[in-house]
Amino acid sequence: MIIIFVILLGMRKIKLLIEYDGTAYKGWQIQKKEITIQGILEDRIFRLTKEKVKVIGASRTDAGVHAFEQVAVFRTASSLEIEIIKKALNALLPHDIRVIDASEVEDSFHPRYSALKKRYFYIIANQREFSAFLYRYTWIVQQSLQLNSMIEESRVLIGKHDFSSFMGAGGGIKNPVREIFSIDIKRLTQIDFMTVAIKGNFIKISIEATGFLRHMVRNIIGTLVEMGRGNLTKMGMKEILQSCDRRLAGPTAPPNGLFLEKIIY
Amino acid sequence: MIIIFVILLGMRKIKLLIEYDGTAYKGWQIQKKEITIQGILEDRIFRLTKEKVKVIGASRTDAGVHAFEQVAVFRTASSLEIEIIKKALNALLPHDIRVIDASEVEDSFHPRYSALKKRYFYIIANQREFSAFLYRYTWIVQQSLQLNSMIEESRVLIGKHDFSSFMGAGGGIKNPVREIFSIDIKRLTQIDFMTVAIKGNFIKISIEATGFLRHMVRNIIGTLVEMGRGNLTKMGMKEILQSCDRRLAGPTAPPNGLFLEKIIY
Repeated sequence: MIIIFVILLGMRKIKLLIEYDGTAYKGWQIQKKEITIQGILEDRIFRLTKEKVKVIGASRTDAGVHAFEQVAVFRTASSLEIEIIKKALNALLPHDIRVIDASEVEDSFHPRYSALKKRYFYIIANQREFSAFLYRYTWIVQQSLQLNSMIEESRVLIGKHDFSSFMGAGGGIKNPVREIFSIDIKRLTQIDFMTVAIKGNFIKISIEATGFLRHMVRNIIGTLVEMGRGNLTKMGMKEILQSCDRRLAGPTAPPNGLFLEKIIY
Repeated sequence: MIIIFVILLGMRKIKLLIEYDGTAYKGWQIQKKEITIQGILEDRIFRLTKEKVKVIGASRTDAGVHAFEQVAVFRTASSLEIEIIKKALNALLPHDIRVIDASEVEDSFHPRYSALKKRYFYIIANQREFSAFLYRYTWIVQQSLQLNSMIEESRVLIGKHDFSSFMGAGGGIKNPVREIFSIDIKRLTQIDFMTVAIKGNFIKISIEATGFLRHMVRNIIGTLVEMGRGNLTKMGMKEILQSCDRRLAGPTAPPNGLFLEKIIY
């Protein structure tokens, strides 16, 4: 006990703000035979510090999901300056994973437990054709979607609920209750890409919650899209939510349209 | 002679407007052992029509260069409706090459000879760090650039000139005279990416001309950046241009920041 305490005294906790294009990765969480963001980070921190650290992330994003501001921490005995850690990691990391900020935090800080809110957004290209540039970052839904019914049904999800109906298998979660603060759904007639306006019919869905169950955002999006298509109309969002039955909700939306936008502490 | 005339009578000329992310390709022009945009298009048109066509593009973009509106034509004896040709090609093409429009044109139309103007733009990330999302589409120049001297020196290039100083080797061009109509250089403090503002210090350079010699845009950008850095200051743009000596200009800027924006007919 005393030994552990002494060891911890000499340890610093480093918080990283991480941006990544998830296209090339099998998600956040480390896996033995797959290339993941957590796996790459732990490897690069080892190269830098020669320490086998565990990197803990705020959100375990799925394969193909992107992040503007993922938050992660690790403990290190290294005395390297924080700016050096940031620069050295960026020099070692692949171009599609970037440390955009690094700071030293109190040992009590935990990226998941300390989080107040998480915000994700999802982009749907609601049209037959898609852009060469946007394919990696949108879900193409060709059938026309009724935005009004999507907005109306989404309101049911606001608040504190058991979200079992939207939980993917294999999450190993004991408590399926989460609180959704807001769901914002709007149509966009263009998306700017490298300063050029790509015209089209896009839908952006932003969701803010205390946290999300496994596949929860993608299952909500998939269900809303079914409702926008006019399917699932016999059963409204209220019945689906109350059933706590995953089989009643819509399919899981593909990962490439999903972005972890921000974690609020 | 009569036979050729008869064959042409039965042929249609199809004009394609093509968008592509050049990252994965060895440029526009067909090569035996490399994957190129022209090569892929000819292959997909063969799959569709069973004809070995030659696709002629307006601009032979280099490996890694992107296009919002490349223009290309091919002749076909196929009687497929134009909308079917577009849809079928998009179904056969990889996601990062898209036919955004297809139309039938007069046989006299030629994507290069009929063009009045071509517009390219280039994005520089003038900062130490770069975004996971923008890396494929920008040139990262860490050293601070003096925009004023870049703008001032760029004015020398406006007009009709022999651009041999900016011509890459191996172009096989007889007449190195081109006319530049405008060069627009401006600083941007953010680039929107999938609706999120990525803050930073960016420079966008747009160039409009009758046409461009091999590597001409990239060599002009490379030279302007040297001037922005304060190098090449003994020799101004005027002397470099008048020398007609490629060795006096700056290095070739990397391809990934370059976009073919539009061809004007």
